[in-house]
Amino acid sequence: MRGAVIYAPGDVRFENLDDPKIIKPTDAVIRTVATCVCGSDLWPYRGAEPVDEPHPMGHEYVGIVEEVGSEVAGVRPGQFVVGSFATSDNTCANCLNGWQSNCLNREFMGTCQAEYVRIPNAHGTLVATDEHPDGEMVPGLLAVSDVMGTGWYAALAAEVKPGSTAVVVGDGAVGLCGVIAAKELGAERIIAMSRHESRQKLALEFGATDIVTERGEEGIVGVKELTNGIGADSVLECVGTPESMRQALHSARPGGNVGFVGVPHEVALDGQELFFSQVGLRGGPAPVRRYLPDLIDRVLSGRINPGKVFDLTLPLEQVAEGYKAMDERRAIKALLKP
Amino acid sequence: MRGAVIYAPGDVRFENLDDPKIIKPTDAVIRTVATCVCGSDLWPYRGAEPVDEPHPMGHEYVGIVEEVGSEVAGVRPGQFVVGSFATSDNTCANCLNGWQSNCLNREFMGTCQAEYVRIPNAHGTLVATDEHPDGEMVPGLLAVSDVMGTGWYAALAAEVKPGSTAVVVGDGAVGLCGVIAAKELGAERIIAMSRHESRQKLALEFGATDIVTERGEEGIVGVKELTNGIGADSVLECVGTPESMRQALHSARPGGNVGFVGVPHEVALDGQELFFSQVGLRGGPAPVRRYLPDLIDRVLSGRINPGKVFDLTLPLEQVAEGYKAMDERRAIKALLKP
Repeated sequence: MRGAVIYAPGDVRFENLDDPKIIKPTDAVIRTVATCVCGSDLWPYRGAEPVDEPHPMGHEYVGIVEEVGSEVAGVRPGQFVVGSFATSDNTCANCLNGWQSNCLNREFMGTCQAEYVRIPNAHGTLVATDEHPDGEMVPGLLAVSDVMGTGWYAALAAEVKPGSTAVVVGDGAVGLCGVIAAKELGAERIIAMSRHESRQKLALEFGATDIVTERGEEGIVGVKELTNGIGADSVLECVGTPESMRQALHSARPGGNVGFVGVPHEVALDGQELFFSQVGLRGGPAPVRRYLPDLIDRVLSGRINPGKVFDLTLPLEQVAEGYKAMDERRAIKALLKP
Repeated sequence: MRGAVIYAPGDVRFENLDDPKIIKPTDAVIRTVATCVCGSDLWPYRGAEPVDEPHPMGHEYVGIVEEVGSEVAGVRPGQFVVGSFATSDNTCANCLNGWQSNCLNREFMGTCQAEYVRIPNAHGTLVATDEHPDGEMVPGLLAVSDVMGTGWYAALAAEVKPGSTAVVVGDGAVGLCGVIAAKELGAERIIAMSRHESRQKLALEFGATDIVTERGEEGIVGVKELTNGIGADSVLECVGTPESMRQALHSARPGGNVGFVGVPHEVALDGQELFFSQVGLRGGPAPVRRYLPDLIDRVLSGRINPGKVFDLTLPLEQVAEGYKAMDERRAIKALLKP
C-alpha cells in the first residue's frame, strides 16, 4: 500500500509501505475512506517538534473494516467505522470513568495518512454506523474522529452551559468546531478570536455572535468589553502557545473555566496568578470515544456540519500539498482521499 | 484599643492602636469576640513574605457589631456576626456569580487580631446569627470565617461528590477542615496525608478513612495503592508549596480534580504535563461569603465541629505566643480572646 512519511521538517513523501497486518487479537485493519492533515501534524512539519527518523503520519480516519483480530467482537468486516486518534479498550478504570484518551492500554494513532491502517484496541475504539453513509457525510464523520471531538471536549472542559458566554481562542479547525460545540451546548454569546476573513465567516456560520480580531492585551480588552468588564464564563483554548494560553486565561471571568486542547508547547503557568484568577482549568487529549455515538448522530441527522472545516480536498497521493497548503494558511484543513 | 502588629519575621507585638472608625458609609465596626492566627500569617512571620513596614495582622473574626455606616442595612449594632477574610459588596457581577472573594470592591481583611475591627462592605460581608451563640459555639463559627470556608471551597473546587475518593494534602487547619468538607459532601474514602500523630487523630475524627504518612514519590505511590492504581477523584491541596502541588496533581486520576487553596509560593505548572494528566484545576481565595449561611447552620446544629482545629486558646495579648506555637508546630491553630 501507499502512505505518507515525514523525513524532516517540510519534507513529507508519499511512498510504498508494508501493508498493515493484525498483530494483536484486539487489532483491526481498515481500508481508509478519508483521512486528513491535523494542525498538530504541523508541529513537526514546521520543525517545532523534532523528526528523529522518518515515520508515517496521520491520526484521523474513517474507513471500512477489512479484517479483525480474534478478540474483536464489536465490529466486523464491511462496516463503515469512525474512531479516535487515541485508541482505548473501553474497559479499564480510566475508560469506565469516561477518560478513554487516558486508557491504560492507549496507543496513539500515527499511520492514518495511508490506504490501510491498523487500529489497536479496535473493539473499544471503533464505532460503526448502521449503514454506509452518503459521500457527503464523510467529511463530517471524519471531523468527528478528532477536531469535532476535540472542540466538543474543549467546550465541556470549559463548562459551557445554556445561556453562557464563550470565547474561542484559535480559528483553526478545532477552534471552529469549538464554536459548533459551544452553540450546541447552549452558549448564548460566542466570541470567536480570528484575524482571517474566511475563518471568521465560517465561525459566524457555525454560531459565533461576535468576532475579536485583536490579540495580546488588545484582545483581552476586546473580550472584556463584550463581557460586562469581567470576562467570559467559558474559554476554549485551541492553539497551545504561551500567547494563546495567556489570552485564554485572561479572557475568563473569576470563577470561569478554560478548556485547553491545543497541545501546549513551552507553556508555563504561574501558580499564584492562576490562584487569584479563580479560573478553572482542564485540558488534554479529548476523550473522543466518549462522544462518538452522540456526535455521529448529530452529523448524520444534519444537525451539525463540521465537515465544512475541510476547505481543501486532495487525492491522498498529494498529501505533501495538503501539509503545504495548511502550513501557508491557504487551507484551514485538508481532506485526503485514497 | 490594643492589637497585634508585625515588625519583622518572628517579631509580632501587642500594642496600643487607634480605635477603628467608620470611614465609608458601607463600613461597620465590630468588637472582636474571637480571632486567631492563620497558616498564611506564618508566611511573613517565617520571612517567606517580606515585611516592608510594621503593620497590623489577622483576617479571621467573629464579633458584636458596635456601629454601622449610613448605608449598612443588613446588620445592626448588638448582633453577633461572622464574616469572611475577603470583604464583598455582594451585588457586583462577580458576587452575583458566587465569586465574592473576587468582588469588584473587595478589600482583604488584615487588622483582625485586635479588640475592635473595621469591616468594609459590611452589608455584603457580615452574616448575623439569630441570637448570640453559646460560648462553646464560638470556635466553630470563627473557623467558618476562614479555614472551614476554605476547606469547603477546596472540596467543591475538587468536585467531591457522593461516593467519590478524596485526598487531602496538608494537615493544617484548612486541610483538616477539608476532611470535614469532603465527608459532608459525601466522599466515601478520604485519604489524609499527615505525618503528625495529633493531626492524624483529628483527621480520623473528622472522617478520614486512610492516612498516608509518606511524601514525595512515596506519597504518590501510597495514594495510588489506595486508589485502584489510577489516583483519586478529588484532591484538596491545602499547603501552597511546589512539593504539595506536585503531590496533589500526581494524586489525582486522569479526569479528576484538584482544588488548591494554599496560596502558591513559587509554584510553576508545566502546561504539557497538566494537559496530558487531564486533571481539572481550580484554586483561589475561597468565596466564603457564599457558604456562610450554610456553614453557620451546620455548626450551630452541631452537625460539624471545625472549632476542634483550635488546640490552643490564648488571651489576645499573648498573640505573639500564638504565632510562636504555630510556627513550632506545637499548635495546629491558636484562638485569641480579647
